[in-house]
Amino acid sequence: MDNFTFYSPTKFVFGKDTESEAGSLVKAFGGSKVLIHYGGGSAVRSGLMGRVKKSLEASGIPYCELGGVKPNPRSGLVYEGIELCRKEGIDFILAVGGGSAIDSSKAIAAGTLYDGDFWDFYCGKPIEKALGVGTILTIAAAGSEGSGDSVITKEEGMFKRGTGSELIRPKFSILNPALTQSLPAYQTACGITDIMAHLYERYLTNTKDVEVTDRLIEALLLTMKNEGPKVIANPDDYEARANIMWAGTMAHTNSCGVGRSQDWNSHNIEHELSALYDCAHGAGLAVTMPVVFRYVMDHDKARFAQVARRVWEVDTAEEGIEAFKNFLISIGMPQTMGELGGKEEDIPTLVKNLCYGDGRTGTIQGFVTLDEEDCTKIYKNML
Amino acid sequence: MDNFTFYSPTKFVFGKDTESEAGSLVKAFGGSKVLIHYGGGSAVRSGLMGRVKKSLEASGIPYCELGGVKPNPRSGLVYEGIELCRKEGIDFILAVGGGSAIDSSKAIAAGTLYDGDFWDFYCGKPIEKALGVGTILTIAAAGSEGSGDSVITKEEGMFKRGTGSELIRPKFSILNPALTQSLPAYQTACGITDIMAHLYERYLTNTKDVEVTDRLIEALLLTMKNEGPKVIANPDDYEARANIMWAGTMAHTNSCGVGRSQDWNSHNIEHELSALYDCAHGAGLAVTMPVVFRYVMDHDKARFAQVARRVWEVDTAEEGIEAFKNFLISIGMPQTMGELGGKEEDIPTLVKNLCYGDGRTGTIQGFVTLDEEDCTKIYKNML
Repeated sequence: MDNFTFYSPTKFVFGKDTESEAGSLVKAFGGSKVLIHYGGGSAVRSGLMGRVKKSLEASGIPYCELGGVKPNPRSGLVYEGIELCRKEGIDFILAVGGGSAIDSSKAIAAGTLYDGDFWDFYCGKPIEKALGVGTILTIAAAGSEGSGDSVITKEEGMFKRGTGSELIRPKFSILNPALTQSLPAYQTACGITDIMAHLYERYLTNTKDVEVTDRLIEALLLTMKNEGPKVIANPDDYEARANIMWAGTMAHTNSCGVGRSQDWNSHNIEHELSALYDCAHGAGLAVTMPVVFRYVMDHDKARFAQVARRVWEVDTAEEGIEAFKNFLISIGMPQTMGELGGKEEDIPTLVKNLCYGDGRTGTIQGFVTLDEEDCTKIYKNML
Repeated sequence: MDNFTFYSPTKFVFGKDTESEAGSLVKAFGGSKVLIHYGGGSAVRSGLMGRVKKSLEASGIPYCELGGVKPNPRSGLVYEGIELCRKEGIDFILAVGGGSAIDSSKAIAAGTLYDGDFWDFYCGKPIEKALGVGTILTIAAAGSEGSGDSVITKEEGMFKRGTGSELIRPKFSILNPALTQSLPAYQTACGITDIMAHLYERYLTNTKDVEVTDRLIEALLLTMKNEGPKVIANPDDYEARANIMWAGTMAHTNSCGVGRSQDWNSHNIEHELSALYDCAHGAGLAVTMPVVFRYVMDHDKARFAQVARRVWEVDTAEEGIEAFKNFLISIGMPQTMGELGGKEEDIPTLVKNLCYGDGRTGTIQGFVTLDEEDCTKIYKNML
């Protein structure tokens, strides 16, 4: 096991009706004027926004609002949020939504207190200070509610890039599984896929003798395998929603990924797809992972065979990848790039953005180092 | 799943040579004068204390020392520590040792800032403030490095009682698995047993539909089952020590115990044994758990059968308990109360202390409610 530091000082408040605690939590973590940052109208229509506002009012906390966060959140709205926070003297951002609203909130939190362009943080500059962030999660997927990470897409060039800092880790995250019951099946399945991707990206390691983290990752994969189909069959299954929600958070706090090298090549390969085609990140991952896994399998077949046996109850590396792919299909995920709107003629652009964007110099590095030729083959295998 | 709050703001610094970071960590968490609180001479003889002092000196942090913490730590040394902290103007306590040194440090941290008797906190009074606590762990067992709990034994009457508060949760915990390599096999095995007990106490729940936490607990039990025998066979196996150490911490941060009722009857029944006979807590648990599990098994046989299948690879509740018992014997743990120094004629005293101590009124309540008659039978079954 490698040396590591694990620090996860986010307060998770989990369960039914917990959004009513938003006001007291903001107050406890020092917020005195809040920006509520959210996505589309569903949070308004469902009555959630009303309950959140009521909770803030009950704690005597003034607020303003900025909606309109889209999946694969954009830099344009971040700039707008930064301007609003400065103008209104906001000191705390409350994200209401999924990973997109949370990641956008984190960008605004860091950008508001920075004189330069917030995009600098997504090009490698360390964040030095940030407003406090809290979240009210409405989809189990990204794990951003329990991490210091944020991914934003810059409109010019459609570059999708990430940053990470303890300073933008949520002070608290409110997790009410009931809020996810109204999600369409496709979005639910995208979330399930994203959570499983966070687990596989950690599972694919070159570090030896990591039994405890192997076992924890397998535990969460087994949870997703067993509970995922339940919520697809019955969206109102609160208990299955709850199991998935906590698994999604635990999958990405990194408690199960410490002390080991990690992969993240599937995420990097997928990010180019969702940046160019604006497809759902989870759907892109469903297409990407089985292809990437087959491509890199021979690098450590015993590892793929281990997860095959322990999670998928089959014997070989190949069968395990096939079982995972079939699972993804069974919950309604796509299998090909075409289903995401992808075209063969875009592959050179995808590969160029992937292998030379984000400061890279011709390769992406993870479980296996992949060069332009590898990535071209991988995208072709997704067609 | 029940509603819950999970908050674990301890910074874990894990791996080889990490004790060299003690000084900078104390400083980062606001300590300016430290009490190093430790047990016997092994930390001195091994050179660990020297390295810790060097690290504090390098950060310019003055310190004084209080050694002599014993297993099942006593109130007498806590009073001594409180007096010393007040006299020396200590604002941070650095525990060097296992659960006993850490629990004693937590008691001193709370007691120093309290006008009354610190024992009040162990009789139900909430802690209102405390000095900062950091830990350097030398045995994987108690999980106190990642919890806000503390258990102390009061000499008068030999009452062993616990308290819990976020205020005494360690700010940081340094986990260097190499420090555990010098432990005798018996102490190592006691630690393994204690960790597995923390998992079983959470596994035995009356809450339904808790797949994610079931799976996480099973993952950690599987880790202990696989890695435990390795360190008994080869005490210098760093990798196995590392897997056990992180499993031990994760077993008790409660990330795998949230949202479900828990048991803790085995701990309560054992506490009377280690209070009266001063036996090792882990050894007491090894004798207690199989007997208690057989006694309560019929309350939810399916649950015992589930852990039997998923962890012990046998089919029935009975076989799973037997497999666990045989595992404990295989690592050198005792099977009977007699091996702990226990005597049949003490049973009425044990039962009286158990069922009427700590504010109880004739029963202990957990997975199953047990009365005096039940507890008498259980102690008799341990003979």
